Parts: sequence; structure tokens; C-alpha cells
Amino acid sequence: MLDTILKHRSIRKYRNTEIPDEILNQILEAGFRASTTGNMQIYSIIVTKDEEKKKKLWELHFKQNMVLQAPVLLTFCADINRFNKWCRQRNAEPGYDNFLWFTNAVIDATLAAQNIAIAAEDFGLGICYLGTTTYQADKLIEIFNCPEGVVPVTTLVLGYPDENPDLVDRLPYKGIVHQEVYQDYSEEMIDEIFKEKESLPVTSQLIEENKIENLAKIFTDKRYPRKDNLYFSKVFLKVIHEQGFMNND
Amino acid sequence: MLDTILKHRSIRKYRNTEIPDEILNQILEAGFRASTTGNMQIYSIIVTKDEEKKKKLWELHFKQNMVLQAPVLLTFCADINRFNKWCRQRNAEPGYDNFLWFTNAVIDATLAAQNIAIAAEDFGLGICYLGTTTYQADKLIEIFNCPEGVVPVTTLVLGYPDENPDLVDRLPYKGIVHQEVYQDYSEEMIDEIFKEKESLPVTSQLIEENKIENLAKIFTDKRYPRKDNLYFSKVFLKVIHEQGFMNND
Repeated sequence: MLDTILKHRSIRKYRNTEIPDEILNQILEAGFRASTTGNMQIYSIIVTKDEEKKKKLWELHFKQNMVLQAPVLLTFCADINRFNKWCRQRNAEPGYDNFLWFTNAVIDATLAAQNIAIAAEDFGLGICYLGTTTYQADKLIEIFNCPEGVVPVTTLVLGYPDENPDLVDRLPYKGIVHQEVYQDYSEEMIDEIFKEKESLPVTSQLIEENKIENLAKIFTDKRYPRKDNLYFSKVFLKVIHEQGFMNND
Repeated sequence: MLDTILKHRSIRKYRNTEIPDEILNQILEAGFRASTTGNMQIYSIIVTKDEEKKKKLWELHFKQNMVLQAPVLLTFCADINRFNKWCRQRNAEPGYDNFLWFTNAVIDATLAAQNIAIAAEDFGLGICYLGTTTYQADKLIEIFNCPEGVVPVTTLVLGYPDENPDLVDRLPYKGIVHQEVYQDYSEEMIDEIFKEKESLPVTSQLIEENKIENLAKIFTDKRYPRKDNLYFSKVFLKVIHEQGFMNND
């Protein structure tokens, strides 16, 4: 088990092989067992297998080819709609149309997603999360017909791997874990924590390819520049309002 | 592996037994292997073992006794502070002080948390998530000295179980999974999806104890009433602003 977790690498190339329904269903059932706020399960999972739908999703997810290759995409949504409907049908007045419950629902959706990711890898499948889901939540809501109370927050690409990449680097233990209180980072600590990442061959290669000073600038100037972040952030915040999660804030 | 996931129950009673550092460290390392936005690892984990600190956390987390019983608490924070410091030290200007990146960081923190939860259970430990973390984020920030860019989002209670509860019910497959598009729920579907939950002996017992009409009202009138939700939501949103995640929205 621990082995499945420790060997995780995101897979970005997939074989053209279906996932048997029996396996997919077991993987999904593993998702349902994740912890959830008050056992309310305030999330939904949208399964995409249809080629036409996948093509639309491929365009939205910045045309990453794995979206077309992989047989299954799972879009995880924060979902208070189902619970609210149940409450109203029982003459109970729900009060979950606010930011706190959006956050609770994001956590619920993400816990289920990670159970599913690990279960999938345990079945020999590869997975990759698509961070572009929050960027394109407005358009995904249209494609999927999501009603008020439902917001896509992350997507899993699922399929049989057609590559076998190495483990990716991670920050050292002391870069992530704090004992008793948050020990803010000194300049020396920052240098030390990021030293390994900065000295990797793949980093030198990236810096050369991008003709840029250092790795940090690849993040701030190339991958996730401020201008894009602000644009997509405004769109996403508008989505949260429109989907009824900021009614009283 | 799948077995560990399928057998998950939240544990709320713990034995007075330490977790060996060697095991705790392996569990934490399992957390680091989770998928993370652009391999940025925009989260931190604060370990609480100290009895005085635990007492403070017990008070904040609505005096749930498991917080005092369990040997270890792990508070997971959305954390852009470390990454920002690195960028600035490298003369790169980060643009992550917005709502989109708060959501990315919540997802990062939650993915790491769920890896840790599963790894812990695989080692025979019990776990329980504390949803009260978002309610009390402002006070947790004080206790932990969290700087700008850091927001506690969830907490794991960790220890050796002193109870062996049954699996808890979950909604049926068709209540959670949608094929290709979101199929909004008809009245009949809501009745069907919640039927099992409503007919459990534990539900009848709860309704009787609370002298209330139905299970939905236990959620809306007792557990998570609107007034409390709105109060804690406003506090949490203020925290997000103060911690610098809404600078340009």
C-alpha cells in the first residue's frame, strides 16, 4: 500500500486501452469511502468517456494530449445542490450557500479524488491531476450542465500508462513539516530547502530552454505569471458567486 | 491497499500510546508524494505533540476529547509563504496572492493529508479529520504563529484506536456519479438516494434523541445551522483576506 503511494508519478502518456467497468466501479467506490464533512458527501464525480466530450475537455484543459489519449476523465465537483434539495424536500432550510461550505466541499471532493487516484494506481492504472479545472470552471459548468451549488474543482485523467517516468523531486522534510509552531523561513533556510530542486539536471535544462535566469522565474514569468493568475482568479471567484456559494459573505 | 481504503472509519477514541518517530516520519513522507500543483508543494504541516498546545487545540476544536487523547495532531495549511520567499530571494515576482491560488493550495494540502491518512491506517493507526479547522482558522493562526500566506484548512487526529466502530453508511453510486453530464436530481431520485440513510436504526435514534421531525433537520437545525455557518464563513473569509489571498480580487 505504502508502496503504491511512494511510487506515485503523474502519467502524461496513455495507451489506447479501455478501463473495464468492473475496475472503474471499484475505483469509484474507493472514493466514496473517504472522510467527508459530517458524512454529507458534498461532492459529485462526472465521468467522461465520450470522444466528443473529451475533445471539448481537451480544448479547455489547454490542449494537453493526455486528455484525448486516456479512456476516462473524472471531474470532481464541490456539490451542495444534492444535499440542499434533500433538505428542502424534507422541509428543512439549508444554510450552506457561503464560502465556509465551499471550502468544506472542495476538501470533500479532493479527499474522494485522492482515494480514487491511489485505488487506480493500485490497479496498475496511471493518473494525472488537471490543475486547469479551476481555471476553466465557468466553461466546464456549461459543458456539464452543472446547476447552482455545483463547481468543478479538479480532474483526474485515468488510463493505462504508456510511459514510465522517474519519481519527481520533492522538498525535504524540514521544508514542509513544522514542530509545534510555524517556524518562518530565514534566507538561509530557503536556500537550503530549494537547493536540491535548483541543482537538478532537469532544472538546468529548463533554464537553458527558457533562456531565463533561474527556476523561480520559470514559475513567475512562464508557467504561472501574475497576469494569468489574476485573470483566472477573477473568473473563478465570479463562478463561486454565481453558483451560490457567496450569498451571505 | 484497496482494503485499507475500503475499511476506513473515523476513530474518535484513542489509546494512550505514542507513535514512534520512525513510523510518523514514514507517514509524513507518504504525504509529500501526493500530486501537487506544478510540483510547488504549496502547503505546510504543523505537528502537535506538546500537551499544553494540545489543550489549546482541544478548546478550539469544540472540546472533542480525541484531541486530548491522541498522541499527534497534524494541522495542514495552505501555504504560499515559502514559495513566495523563494521567488523573491531569486528576484522573481510571485503573483499567487489571489483566490485561485488559495484554492490550489487547499487542494495541495488536502491531497497530502489524504495520503497521510491512508498511510497511517496502513500502519494500524486510526485517524479523524477535524472540520473545525476552517471554523477556527483565525485562532489557529495565532496559536501557530502563521505568517501571511499561510491558512490552516484541515487537521488530522492520529493515534492507536481504542474503539472499533462499524463502517459508516455512504450514498449509493448513482447518488454521486454522473455519466457525461450532471444529471440534476428529481424529487424521486432524492428520495431514493437518501432512503437507506434515512432508514438506518442510528437515524431513528438521532431523531428521537433530538426530538425533531427528520434527519435533514438534524443537519440544518442542530449540527450546522445557518446562523453558525454564516458567522464562521465571515470569519474565514476575513482570514483569507488578511493572510493575503484576496489581494487582487
